[in-house]
Amino acid sequence: MNHQGLLARRTRHMGVNAIREILKVVSQPGMISLAGGIPSPESFPMPQIERLCQTVIRKYGCAAFQYDLTEGFAPLRRALAQYLQKKEVAATEAQVLVASGSQSILDALGKVLITRGDRIAVEDPTYLGALQAFTPYEPVYVCLDSDQDGLVPQSLEAALSSQPIKFIYLVPTFQNPTGRTLSLERRRQIAAIVRRHGALLVEDDPYSDLRYSGRPLPPVKSLAPDQVVYVSTLSKVFAPGLRIGFCVAPELIHRWLVVVKQGNDLHTSTFDQALAAEYLTSGELARHVPTIIALYRPRQQAMLGALERYFPKSFSWSRPEGGMFIWAKGPEGMDMEAVYWKAVAQKTAFVPGKFFFARQGAGIETLRLNFTMADESGIEAAVRTLAGVVRAAV
Amino acid sequence: MNHQGLLARRTRHMGVNAIREILKVVSQPGMISLAGGIPSPESFPMPQIERLCQTVIRKYGCAAFQYDLTEGFAPLRRALAQYLQKKEVAATEAQVLVASGSQSILDALGKVLITRGDRIAVEDPTYLGALQAFTPYEPVYVCLDSDQDGLVPQSLEAALSSQPIKFIYLVPTFQNPTGRTLSLERRRQIAAIVRRHGALLVEDDPYSDLRYSGRPLPPVKSLAPDQVVYVSTLSKVFAPGLRIGFCVAPELIHRWLVVVKQGNDLHTSTFDQALAAEYLTSGELARHVPTIIALYRPRQQAMLGALERYFPKSFSWSRPEGGMFIWAKGPEGMDMEAVYWKAVAQKTAFVPGKFFFARQGAGIETLRLNFTMADESGIEAAVRTLAGVVRAAV
Repeated sequence: MNHQGLLARRTRHMGVNAIREILKVVSQPGMISLAGGIPSPESFPMPQIERLCQTVIRKYGCAAFQYDLTEGFAPLRRALAQYLQKKEVAATEAQVLVASGSQSILDALGKVLITRGDRIAVEDPTYLGALQAFTPYEPVYVCLDSDQDGLVPQSLEAALSSQPIKFIYLVPTFQNPTGRTLSLERRRQIAAIVRRHGALLVEDDPYSDLRYSGRPLPPVKSLAPDQVVYVSTLSKVFAPGLRIGFCVAPELIHRWLVVVKQGNDLHTSTFDQALAAEYLTSGELARHVPTIIALYRPRQQAMLGALERYFPKSFSWSRPEGGMFIWAKGPEGMDMEAVYWKAVAQKTAFVPGKFFFARQGAGIETLRLNFTMADESGIEAAVRTLAGVVRAAV
Repeated sequence: MNHQGLLARRTRHMGVNAIREILKVVSQPGMISLAGGIPSPESFPMPQIERLCQTVIRKYGCAAFQYDLTEGFAPLRRALAQYLQKKEVAATEAQVLVASGSQSILDALGKVLITRGDRIAVEDPTYLGALQAFTPYEPVYVCLDSDQDGLVPQSLEAALSSQPIKFIYLVPTFQNPTGRTLSLERRRQIAAIVRRHGALLVEDDPYSDLRYSGRPLPPVKSLAPDQVVYVSTLSKVFAPGLRIGFCVAPELIHRWLVVVKQGNDLHTSTFDQALAAEYLTSGELARHVPTIIALYRPRQQAMLGALERYFPKSFSWSRPEGGMFIWAKGPEGMDMEAVYWKAVAQKTAFVPGKFFFARQGAGIETLRLNFTMADESGIEAAVRTLAGVVRAAV
């Protein structure tokens, strides 16, 4: 039987995820991958997790395995409200919404906010998962300019002045894919712009805890609380497989996110939320983050050093103070997908940067390099191999 | 700031969940609740769960806490394929899709299949969570007739003959809210009808393991494999808080469900899936289900006995061979929401049946009674109280 005719209009427009297709080869044995966007398993607090399981079972018993509130497990919401205070995000327990990874918050935001044809403003390049969450609701993307200091405020001002924009999606700190961070000055400018226009900004902040140098910057949420949905996750500082995301949204939007989440998945795993609650309240998170930083900082330094040593002078790259990625750019017109296939033949993988652009044809000479999965010597070897491939392509 | 203008068209149509509002009082201390649709915490395999945590951490280590495939954790998909064989659902590991509760499968089906205005055929009354999953995609519901033996095949035939129907949603076994089960004869008729029309049927089967008497019936999926998306969950036989749902869909639909799930939540908790995999493969599930049945069977008998003893002769009710609910019907026009508030004042809760009807104004004289949460004496007391309230209302 042919079910093609049963698909929704949105589905027929969705198309298969090209990046997923090309990354299928990455799991081949012997591959050194700078491609993934995933934390190192060495960063997981494994001995603590076994204890956390016992504590949760002893402390909450059956309640940790029962249906629970759509809004989230109360002890976790309480713990997250405290955790957010240190990030200058003011939120009560009632204002925190827990969800199944920040991905599911992006989807719920799309469902609550986007009617077909609505304009969504995004950095270009932007986080691919956000596009995957929003695209099924059939928006039109408005691409904003960004440079070394992140989103260019004038570009946002121009976009908001010329057309109705449903919301702006932004990763201001150690952005995926570029690693770039929005400067303090620009955060203030952007907060002022969204306030003036009465615009809504979705601030996605998965990486700010992974800071290897420099001083923390305030989230845009802290500068324009009424204008910003702050979205984050424990995936980078606890364990991504537990799928714990959370957000703090203006009240009306929070209320609708809860209604939509009830239809999406009723609620997020109670047990996983209870583990997260104990991880935060016991102080394990605060104790463990420095260990993760101590693991990643030398890997990032190894990558920056190897790029300096081996890459041609015609390349430039970001030097982020944290996060998981370095973004590099080759000479105009160099096709990084062609480079990808040659590098993969030499057991070295990365992600061609073009996949992160909403605009077709943009960024073909860019690449995203992850430094959390391989160790220093693996990174050194991979960058050297990659340098050989790009030198042959120059 | 007023964000009302930012809401999507679908959101402005969604409306707040009325049942959720009226059930807020149910958690008051001292309440005997026949209202919930939730398993008894006594049914959870708590001692096994503590061991399963240790086994999973030892066996899979970090992999149980890492990002994983959107399709599901391979050992769980394998275990579910085996489990489904016993239910006469033929599926390979690759054909099983794991999701964050069956709710998230219903949402994903809506996203893949429904364009605004599409017709979805549902039993009337039907499972409320399904309506909550589908409604944001703005379908039009076509209500099918059902009686003591479940969906009336002629009603389905008439609906499919007179208009395009995107899919039919059906809970054939121990339906929520009515507890009714589609007879074998009707299963065969319905399978023949959907085959003849090339229609798609979503068969939701959360309760079939909870059979207290009579013989198991084959799922409609086994009678029309190409025409049916089979959806189920471990919530009733393991622990609902772990949010493990799964489905077996025709290939094209399976493929799009995976694409959509990636945008929805990337994947379901790896740890929870690993716990479920061990629960199934170790044989714990097979050993534990009889314990759950032994817990619920006498509760159901207590409820049926009490209804017989205390309820007026003007009432009728279902006598299901399993599941979690009994469905009762009072004299034409009796307003069960009014009865609800009087019963709640006497510390006894249930759900007025009208909330389960897609048609406005239908079913005001019906009520759903859950027998899994209270014990036999609690059920006896609650039904007696309720009988007093309805006798006063007759």
